[in-house]
This record gives sequence, structure tokens and C-alpha cells, in this order.
Amino acid sequence: MLQYARPLQRLLSALEKLPGVGPKSAQRLAFYILRADSGEVEEFAAALVDVKHSIHPCTRCFNYSEGDLCPICADPRREVHSVCVVEEASDVMAIERSGEFRGIYHVLGGRLSPIAGVGYDDINLDEFLDRVRAGGVSEVILATSPTVEGDATAHEVARLVAEIAESGAIELAPRLSRIALGLPVGGDLDYADGLTLARAMRGRTPLDGGPS
Amino acid sequence: MLQYARPLQRLLSALEKLPGVGPKSAQRLAFYILRADSGEVEEFAAALVDVKHSIHPCTRCFNYSEGDLCPICADPRREVHSVCVVEEASDVMAIERSGEFRGIYHVLGGRLSPIAGVGYDDINLDEFLDRVRAGGVSEVILATSPTVEGDATAHEVARLVAEIAESGAIELAPRLSRIALGLPVGGDLDYADGLTLARAMRGRTPLDGGPS
Repeated sequence: MLQYARPLQRLLSALEKLPGVGPKSAQRLAFYILRADSGEVEEFAAALVDVKHSIHPCTRCFNYSEGDLCPICADPRREVHSVCVVEEASDVMAIERSGEFRGIYHVLGGRLSPIAGVGYDDINLDEFLDRVRAGGVSEVILATSPTVEGDATAHEVARLVAEIAESGAIELAPRLSRIALGLPVGGDLDYADGLTLARAMRGRTPLDGGPS
Repeated sequence: MLQYARPLQRLLSALEKLPGVGPKSAQRLAFYILRADSGEVEEFAAALVDVKHSIHPCTRCFNYSEGDLCPICADPRREVHSVCVVEEASDVMAIERSGEFRGIYHVLGGRLSPIAGVGYDDINLDEFLDRVRAGGVSEVILATSPTVEGDATAHEVARLVAEIAESGAIELAPRLSRIALGLPVGGDLDYADGLTLARAMRGRTPLDGGPS
């Protein structure tokens, strides 16, 4: 048994609970913290406690938020008629990083999974359909994960939106789309798996200048 | 610019200061923390603050310690006549992990480096010589880093210990040794650099059963 001073052992145990942090990285982090400026460490500790107390789901889209509305929903420059449906709040950040989308989001908080027992009421699906029913949504981009369950969730959401449109509850049916699946940029064809290649072939787009 | 909620941005900034944590791992850690149990996160924050307040250098060996003596110095089963000299407290843990050493330590808190302006008074060298002068040290293992400066520090410590022994201040001269340099266990000769191989050849040890 290693003999660490008790407060150090306590910190190591806490660090090892973090994802991707094993005993060795926990030790490296702990030694960094021991050498770091006290003010910096206290700021870190305060940020940890603060984030748990002051972050709540956005009342509109369920993204992480400090106030009622998350920074994206509260931004008047966003195009509120275009809604991107994702599984997790972390997916919002991933899409934001791409800089490709100027609309707003809806975070389902999971995906439908009969095997895992995740049904309609376990994700924020009704809340999304209410947003659609309220009108003003002209485009729905389904950006759930490229997995069997993510695909099924996307198709189910699309089906329910189409149902609302057909019922006449809203004036215009929103355009529905699924984010493209294909080869990652910079990826090598050799390394792509068969399924990804199949999706990339199926999703091929015409080149400008070619025969139409 | 990504639009994170302010408390989340604050946590991300704090996480990105940690060694080996870039923007992407900071985000992964932050999302883990957002989803984690509040009690677990509060325990983590408390451990961070606690470690800065309650960890001090051991009064004997300068290892990390909660009380006056670190857990190793305070352990009556350790062989106090054998002292291993290391650069950093993290090195103590590395050697402890090996389970190969039953003595106690002395943490220099650095290594001599004329280039970086680190001299005798900048590391815990006098404190070590005082321990030698006080008597009872029969073995000194120099486990400073296998670098030019670590080697130079080891030789300088050895020279000063020998000087004390020659001056007659202590009854018996401590045995002096340097930890072996050579190939890492499980390593491949092909991948070893020339210097390591040279040290491994020079440090070769006789095999049992061979001609002596």
C-alpha cells in the first residue's frame, strides 16, 4: 500500500472518479494542484460548486443555462424558425463549434431505446412537439447520433412532426432533414468502416459543373 | 465564439489550466461534472481546498505531509538508516509504487542547475547534510533524475557526504549508490536510444551460475 498523506489520498480518490482519469493521471493532476497557486485552486473549487448550483436546463430548449433561457435561445440574432434536435447538451456545443448553424436547438436528453427502456416520456419529446405546435418552426434538423437508436429517434420525431402538420394544427409543414452521414473530413477511405462508406455513397451530392 | 452559460465557461477555464487538459477534455470533464451527483462534486471541491490548506512539507524529508512527519517518516517499520535522495515528492510516490525500498527519503525539491540558476541554497541540500551529520545514516541511494543535471546533483551530494565522513564528524561513512540506469522492463532493444543502451551495457550485472 502506498502511503499518501490523508488529504492527498482524498484528492486522488476524487480525481480518479473523473472520466478518462486513471491512477497515474490523477497523481499528475494532484501534484500539479499541490504546486499550483492557492488562489487558482480555490477558483477551481468555487467553479465546481458554482456550476452545480447555478446551471439548469433552458426552459425552451433544455440546453445548459444559467438563466431561464440559455445563451443561444437568448441571442436575438439566432434564427428561431430553424430548430436542430440533438440528444445531449454536449451535442449543442459540438455543433456550435462547427459554426455552421445559426438556428436554435432542442435537447432531447437522450434517445428512444426500447431495449434500455427509454420511451417517449423519458426524453423531452412532448416539449419539442409543443414547440412545433406553437408555430413558427419552418425547419427541423434531426441531429441525433448516427446509431440505430439515434436513427430511429430521428425518424420517430420526423413522423410526429409530419403528423402535426397533417392535422392542420400549424399553417406550414416544417422542412425535415437529417444531418449527413459520411466520411469524416481528412479521413482515409482505407480506414472507413463499411457502414460509413455505404452511407457516404448513398448520400453522395452532385458536383457543380457535372451533368445534372 | 461559443456561447456557454457563464458558470460553465468559468469551469471550463479552470479545467483547461490543468496539465494535459485541452479544450476538448475540459469540455468532456465539465459535462461529466454537470451530470454528476452534487455530493460527489462538492466532495471534489472540498478535497481541492483541503489539500492546499493541510498539506505541508515533512519536517524531516520534505515529502508531502499532513502532520509534522509524512506517513513514511512516521511509519516505525521503515528502515531509517537507509535514505533515498530524490528531486521531487512525486518521485517518492514513484519509488513507493515499485515496492522495492523499505528505507526513508529526502526530497531535494529540485536539482542543481547552473544554467537555470539553481544553486545549493535553492534546494533542500543543507537539510540533508544535517541529517547525515546527525548520524545513523548508513546508506544513501541517489535517485535523482537520469539527466545531466540529475547526475551532477547526485555526484555533488555524494561528494559532500563523503566529505562529512572524512572530516570524522560521523562514525561510519554511509554506503553511497546511484539507482541503475538501463533498459526499461518490457522494453525493446530496437527502440532504446544509444545513451540508454550504453548505460545498460556499462551497468551490466553478473548472472548466477556464470563464471565469476
